[in-house]
Amino acid sequence: MPSFPERATVREVGLRDGLQSVRTVLPTERKKAWIRAAHAAGQREIEVGSFVPVKLVPQLADTAELVEYAKTLPGLVVSVLVPNLKGAERALASGADLMLLPLSASRAHSLANLRKTPDEVIAEAGRIRAARDAAGAKTLIEGGIGTAFGCTIQGEVKESEVLRCLQGLLDAGVDRVSIADTVGFAGPGAVRGLFEQARKVAGERFCAGHFHDTRGLALANVYAALETGVDRFDASLAGIGGCPYAPGASGNVASEDLAFMLQGMGIATGIDIERLLALRADVAAWLEGETLHGTLWRAGLPSTMPRQAVAVHASADA
Amino acid sequence: MPSFPERATVREVGLRDGLQSVRTVLPTERKKAWIRAAHAAGQREIEVGSFVPVKLVPQLADTAELVEYAKTLPGLVVSVLVPNLKGAERALASGADLMLLPLSASRAHSLANLRKTPDEVIAEAGRIRAARDAAGAKTLIEGGIGTAFGCTIQGEVKESEVLRCLQGLLDAGVDRVSIADTVGFAGPGAVRGLFEQARKVAGERFCAGHFHDTRGLALANVYAALETGVDRFDASLAGIGGCPYAPGASGNVASEDLAFMLQGMGIATGIDIERLLALRADVAAWLEGETLHGTLWRAGLPSTMPRQAVAVHASADA
Repeated sequence: MPSFPERATVREVGLRDGLQSVRTVLPTERKKAWIRAAHAAGQREIEVGSFVPVKLVPQLADTAELVEYAKTLPGLVVSVLVPNLKGAERALASGADLMLLPLSASRAHSLANLRKTPDEVIAEAGRIRAARDAAGAKTLIEGGIGTAFGCTIQGEVKESEVLRCLQGLLDAGVDRVSIADTVGFAGPGAVRGLFEQARKVAGERFCAGHFHDTRGLALANVYAALETGVDRFDASLAGIGGCPYAPGASGNVASEDLAFMLQGMGIATGIDIERLLALRADVAAWLEGETLHGTLWRAGLPSTMPRQAVAVHASADA
Repeated sequence: MPSFPERATVREVGLRDGLQSVRTVLPTERKKAWIRAAHAAGQREIEVGSFVPVKLVPQLADTAELVEYAKTLPGLVVSVLVPNLKGAERALASGADLMLLPLSASRAHSLANLRKTPDEVIAEAGRIRAARDAAGAKTLIEGGIGTAFGCTIQGEVKESEVLRCLQGLLDAGVDRVSIADTVGFAGPGAVRGLFEQARKVAGERFCAGHFHDTRGLALANVYAALETGVDRFDASLAGIGGCPYAPGASGNVASEDLAFMLQGMGIATGIDIERLLALRADVAAWLEGETLHGTLWRAGLPSTMPRQAVAVHASADA
């Protein structure tokens, strides 16, 4: 049997992937409270927003302010999504630790979502790398390959095309790559197969998986990915999320359910799940009327599960 | 990486584990329609009820009639739950193909649920085996070890105690054994660990896993179990189920979600998922007001998934 990593990261994307797909526009102060409480609960990587044109995603117009705020929290890796060079320039100016450039392996989805072919996105990655180097900035560049397991518009997406895009991004100079099941088509067998290949191509530079729970398989997919050595997963508190350009692609894996599974497997996440559940309750109240997901919050932690020691994080929060 | 089985069985337990835990008493004719449609959709193992005292579980009072009906469907393995020798005698008289004797590895849960210690249940298994042999019946005896990953009443349940009960049941003469996470405490790491040990003790006679989705991990648990070679899983249509004596233990893994995961992995189940989803819609209407679960029904099958060829089953249904 393959071994599991000792530690894994639950990267919170609820403030970006989640909030861009709900009707509620969360006030900046509430977003800051979310980031603060997520950090206090032990989360150490948070995608706080995206530098897309404000008229397209007005919910995320305060991204620069959120980056500035999040950077004040000790040990927090602050990431943003950037669709292109222009967004990357804003990310570099904001001082974000990491910028995620999405690339759709589905050509049809790529044209609908980014108005570029996959190869045009790869070329943009090269320009972003040049801009980063010219600025002398430390902001990491992550290429995130979406619709990697199929696409609601195009249908099948070939594994060879995903791996070609992945290699293309690496050649263009991104620091690392991740793979996303943008529309919830993936099952654990497909994840195992593709992630094993991606590890062969990118090694440790293949850094994360991003799964939607559209058909209930997100946690099984994470388990399969863990067995290939991947140890970072995007997740949204209360499972909010989706893609406005991919119909039916509702719900990222819920951060609290993911942390519960990982810690139950003896994989350290640094997260105090009770605190995360308390934050979930707050966010659920702020998002009243929106569709939320996740399962753990209903039943709570099993009586047999010891509460995670969080002395270090608790003191950082004080 | 471990290999997966080529085929796996989704054993339907919604008519027993599901219906015993909802308020609605489904009329016998509707239960027959459910069994008929499940068979037509390709399900070949169905637990149709239990031979417990009618006053305890009046919803399942028609079990003998359901066994008689289900036995008319070609190729269907008809199983029932029996709590003791008296129930086993009724099962033998009914002509069921298999009787499942539950044993709680948690002593506290065993006393609350069956009013017997685990060792007293093992002794009862011996008496059931003797009765089966005396009757010259072909009804298989399965010992199902519940609360194998912890218990809401007792808390921790030791792996060594689960394996001791498992060996005890085999020594008492059961034909095969299965393991259940009755209250939804299991995660995939624990499943892998215990199932590997159980395979070492029982080999092929360790035949099935039974997972509740109380905390969202049922499908990840199935995936972990598949890697240990287990190829039969209990499931309830629409995820109904639970244990009336284990508070909070809501929801078996949903049959339709499980079939979807398995078939997506290239593991044949013989199930036509579209038909199963149609049956789910019928059952949901019959159980109006009850809490249902599962995820696939909302999004439907991915456009990339070919519909399962079901010529054999379809003709059996004609």
